Amino acid sequence: MVSTPHVVPGPDGAAVLRERLGDRVVSDADVARSYATDATAPPRPAPDDFTVVRARDEGDVVAVLEHAQATGTPVVPQGARTSRAAGAGALDGAIVLNVEALGGVRDLDPLEGLAVVGPGLVNADLKAAAAAAGLFYGPDPASWRTCTIGGNVATNAGGLCCVKYGVTADWVTALRVVLPGGEVMRTGHRTAKGVAGYDLTGLLVGSEGTLGVVTEVVVRLRPAPDPALTALGVFDSLDAAVAGVAALRADRHRPCLLELMDRTSVRAVQAFGDHGFPDDAEAVLLVQADRPGHVAQDVARYAELLSAAGATDVAVADDEQESQALLEGRRVMSTAFEAMGGRIAEDVCVPVGRLADLVRGIQAVATDEQVLVPVGGHAGDGNLHPSIVYDPTDPDAVRRAMRAFDRIVRLAWSLGGTMTGEHGVGALKAPWLEEELGRAEVARQRRLKAVFDPGGIMNPGVVFEA
Amino acid sequence: MVSTPHVVPGPDGAAVLRERLGDRVVSDADVARSYATDATAPPRPAPDDFTVVRARDEGDVVAVLEHAQATGTPVVPQGARTSRAAGAGALDGAIVLNVEALGGVRDLDPLEGLAVVGPGLVNADLKAAAAAAGLFYGPDPASWRTCTIGGNVATNAGGLCCVKYGVTADWVTALRVVLPGGEVMRTGHRTAKGVAGYDLTGLLVGSEGTLGVVTEVVVRLRPAPDPALTALGVFDSLDAAVAGVAALRADRHRPCLLELMDRTSVRAVQAFGDHGFPDDAEAVLLVQADRPGHVAQDVARYAELLSAAGATDVAVADDEQESQALLEGRRVMSTAFEAMGGRIAEDVCVPVGRLADLVRGIQAVATDEQVLVPVGGHAGDGNLHPSIVYDPTDPDAVRRAMRAFDRIVRLAWSLGGTMTGEHGVGALKAPWLEEELGRAEVARQRRLKAVFDPGGIMNPGVVFEA
Repeated sequence: MVSTPHVVPGPDGAAVLRERLGDRVVSDADVARSYATDATAPPRPAPDDFTVVRARDEGDVVAVLEHAQATGTPVVPQGARTSRAAGAGALDGAIVLNVEALGGVRDLDPLEGLAVVGPGLVNADLKAAAAAAGLFYGPDPASWRTCTIGGNVATNAGGLCCVKYGVTADWVTALRVVLPGGEVMRTGHRTAKGVAGYDLTGLLVGSEGTLGVVTEVVVRLRPAPDPALTALGVFDSLDAAVAGVAALRADRHRPCLLELMDRTSVRAVQAFGDHGFPDDAEAVLLVQADRPGHVAQDVARYAELLSAAGATDVAVADDEQESQALLEGRRVMSTAFEAMGGRIAEDVCVPVGRLADLVRGIQAVATDEQVLVPVGGHAGDGNLHPSIVYDPTDPDAVRRAMRAFDRIVRLAWSLGGTMTGEHGVGALKAPWLEEELGRAEVARQRRLKAVFDPGGIMNPGVVFEA
Repeated sequence: MVSTPHVVPGPDGAAVLRERLGDRVVSDADVARSYATDATAPPRPAPDDFTVVRARDEGDVVAVLEHAQATGTPVVPQGARTSRAAGAGALDGAIVLNVEALGGVRDLDPLEGLAVVGPGLVNADLKAAAAAAGLFYGPDPASWRTCTIGGNVATNAGGLCCVKYGVTADWVTALRVVLPGGEVMRTGHRTAKGVAGYDLTGLLVGSEGTLGVVTEVVVRLRPAPDPALTALGVFDSLDAAVAGVAALRADRHRPCLLELMDRTSVRAVQAFGDHGFPDDAEAVLLVQADRPGHVAQDVARYAELLSAAGATDVAVADDEQESQALLEGRRVMSTAFEAMGGRIAEDVCVPVGRLADLVRGIQAVATDEQVLVPVGGHAGDGNLHPSIVYDPTDPDAVRRAMRAFDRIVRLAWSLGGTMTGEHGVGALKAPWLEEELGRAEVARQRRLKAVFDPGGIMNPGVVFEA
């Protein structure tokens, strides 16, 4: 049950915060409650007692972090709340510091090849601003139409195009960050190169709000590729599909998208609406080309590679509309899974050479735990998102789902992989972090955190267990 | 004067180190002296009392760092000693820990697109190993035929191809690092994505041996581009040359090399040997194309862009041999400068839009301080290497050279740039770091260093003043 949040953590804090920040402190309890949780499933219960501040500028962020440091109040930085790893949910006694209003493209410089943006800028809006200048910002998390650049920086977000264009960290060159106490730190550089001192930009990207609050992001922009065309291959064998992935990765001109759906995903999508997939498909691969001047040629070659790998059916789009149609089955995957019950989105990543072992291992776990686990995702990166689908009203099903979750994490480790490719650790996977990195490493990272956040007020319980 | 180094920092240390490491501890004083300094000019005097250990494996590195931590002995990690920023020179009482023998390509995996190499591997050998598999490792510091990957990681080295392919940090995905006390830390991941915990790979790259000793490096490999072709443009106006740089950067297909030589560089090179440059050239631009299947087309278009920007003469190579010939003038630049007297290699980087201001400002400093400062370097990145040439036997000339050095650093700052684009801070520029980053930031970075190196034994005086 969601309970009524108080406006501020305590009467003194209330007065101070409201005096400094006025209506940026949310006073309506229903509005405040709408900031309590993120997109994580299963949803976490909202706490009883938290405050929401909707910052309008960096000064507001400074005020909150001065106050929080002085009063020892936890701070949960927050953008569009699209986290799937419980990275941005309210905590009891915390200030939820939402920076969605710190948006905007503050500068876009084609000569230097960079844009300076606010953390609240929506990923799609950055892409659009770049495109208007004939340029391109790569990272495209599935939530790109709603998620913010600040959240992308916090999680080092990936997406579908990473197989060619890398992740958020590959595109961020400089940050402004407000630290606990209100100090404004600048990291990185706007010049193309710069090595004076340590690279704190890299450390901050992916730190999930545990070190400070990002208030400005400088990203690289590149010349825009051509509009992509899609090929789709249907396979009656998982090994053949994975051979297709290997062949496509070995192509001299890397695809800009290379997605896999396993048989359970295909059936779930077909049950949701007919996307033309045969019910007995063991796997489907989707691949895109966007190389300037060579899109049709590349996608035709990709289709040949799919056939050569053993695809039983291959379709190639001739135009953008057909491309979108071929992708539609992949697009509705999340919605189809969510229609089936409770759903935990996994985010494991393994070496590409272990993909077949990963998919088969997950299928075995699903059978064993009697849960449905459709597997889809970014095969070109070895980064798959098994969805553990279960009946949330059945306590035994919930237990089996959580067991499957744990077993899939361990499976990824056993294949030389990681429990999180792009969603982040969040509070969801914090209990597993020490097993992945080792106790000494987590202790070291906690000491690093303390350099920025000696009071431990930044997003407690996220990345590191509280 | 170089004096005779002792074999170990003290009699106790001597016994312990030699017992554990045998002949990895250099006992010949002349051999030890050859490890005392790096490629920095002016050369720094070698200290009286230091020990050289030539590690043969990670176990040797562990032994040294256990011993050093226990005895509070400073450690100077060292590869091929090509530092131009006094990053790898011996210190009094220190152990110089050379890891050149930890070389080799330990794994090269075309499917995953990565190589696992030792820090002592020479950059050129990594490129060759990648090329043998049809793949490509990008970063190409000018010293690429001799410098090691460990040193490239330590300095986040750049080079000539960065304008298209980025710097070392863009290619390193995981490290093994031995920390003071001997603990082996692993950072990053071999999978294409991975966000469990903080990105310590990014923090270690560019840390100049101040945090630990890298013993293994995982780098990304990409499909090999085509062999490059070169175009050369001669300009009688600096502004026209810089307009050429801007036009080339704006091209949809980014050149893989974009170098500038100013009038003083051109004259110095011509004085060294006739490379066909007119004596009255105000600037020369060199540009290369390597896009698969489009090299001739791109380089022809680049030549047109040079002409359109106002080049008085443009030459385009038809084959690799002509390409090399056109580049030869740029290649001999360092040697030509060094033949002229003492030479301090600057390494400033500014926004590309400020290049003309940078070059003109440097020319004004040279006139003012009565020193010769040929300016050349990576114009496509805004990263230039002014060389302050002076008579090392004239104390007044040395003073004027050092004043010019300081003024060029300040000029770069005033243009929104940095004092070091790719050489690193080293001991050479450590006194300037606080002015570039601010006192609070340097204090924070010292606290970060202390997380890894609480005793402050790692490369003291480098990056941060001792």
